[in-house]
Amino acid sequence: MTTIAVLIGKDFEDSEYSEPARAFRNAGCRLVHLGLKKGETVTGKKHATPVQIDMEVDSAGPDDFDALLIPGGYSPDNLRAHKGPVRFVKHFMERDKPVFAICHGPQLLISAGKLQGRKATGWKSLLCDMKYAGADYLDKEVVVDGNLVTSRRPSDIPAFVDACLKMLGLAGKKAA
Amino acid sequence: MTTIAVLIGKDFEDSEYSEPARAFRNAGCRLVHLGLKKGETVTGKKHATPVQIDMEVDSAGPDDFDALLIPGGYSPDNLRAHKGPVRFVKHFMERDKPVFAICHGPQLLISAGKLQGRKATGWKSLLCDMKYAGADYLDKEVVVDGNLVTSRRPSDIPAFVDACLKMLGLAGKKAA
Repeated sequence: MTTIAVLIGKDFEDSEYSEPARAFRNAGCRLVHLGLKKGETVTGKKHATPVQIDMEVDSAGPDDFDALLIPGGYSPDNLRAHKGPVRFVKHFMERDKPVFAICHGPQLLISAGKLQGRKATGWKSLLCDMKYAGADYLDKEVVVDGNLVTSRRPSDIPAFVDACLKMLGLAGKKAA
Repeated sequence: MTTIAVLIGKDFEDSEYSEPARAFRNAGCRLVHLGLKKGETVTGKKHATPVQIDMEVDSAGPDDFDALLIPGGYSPDNLRAHKGPVRFVKHFMERDKPVFAICHGPQLLISAGKLQGRKATGWKSLLCDMKYAGADYLDKEVVVDGNLVTSRRPSDIPAFVDACLKMLGLAGKKAA
């Protein structure tokens, strides 16, 4: 079974978590929610969608997961103020495992120092930050570069999910 | 009378607006709230402090003001997704007029391309972004570099306000 780490904190963009999560589960994946505190419930910024943290990110290693999802909203900025989430993203990128980041998700990639020379996209307010961090910013609904899948905003979710499932070899699959 | 532009949008950090605003008014300053839409009320992210926008930022010119205050929270990221606020900050910095930015406030300075070679500070999640943008990031409660005053977080507000009032030549002044 494909196991996906979801790195998530307070004030995430609801749909950027819930829609990919539903698609991944429908394709038979298991999700593990990583955050700052095990057992804590974090909520989305628009609709207060609740997500319970399964595991403290400091206790998680990239080898336990097949891919990493980073939803947007204010969650990535809240998480990257702490060392654990930044270290986890850095290690995940160094393993060359699939990383899926949407909207503000690339903020964690910047803090992990992993956008240098990478083709990527993200929410328009991050354009400068991503360019300064060395990314080749493309204004497209989804950008795939090696292990990295990025998108700009909620309206890109269908293309984002398609690209993620394709990278996992699960395009068109439904759970039994 | 000293007139201060306050560039503000939704989900600002309440105290980073209300405490400097009170201090500036107590020192006899007039505040003009600039935002995306005249007449709109934007609210703080913690206590829903209401602020009514006096003037659309696209209609405002830096020559109409003596200084610029940029409170933090999620407001700077929301504003910098639009051209008007970024252009206003750029022009203000190019006039070498006093600019006061706290916490996430420097995000607008990054998007305006005005941190290159400047000593500055800001909320810890911005450390990478500010360094990549060319700033000399200092982990201090307040950093003064030429026309620019920056601070890291709400607990820095007293030092921030003192440095701002000093730059305006209003230290120790009270309104009549």
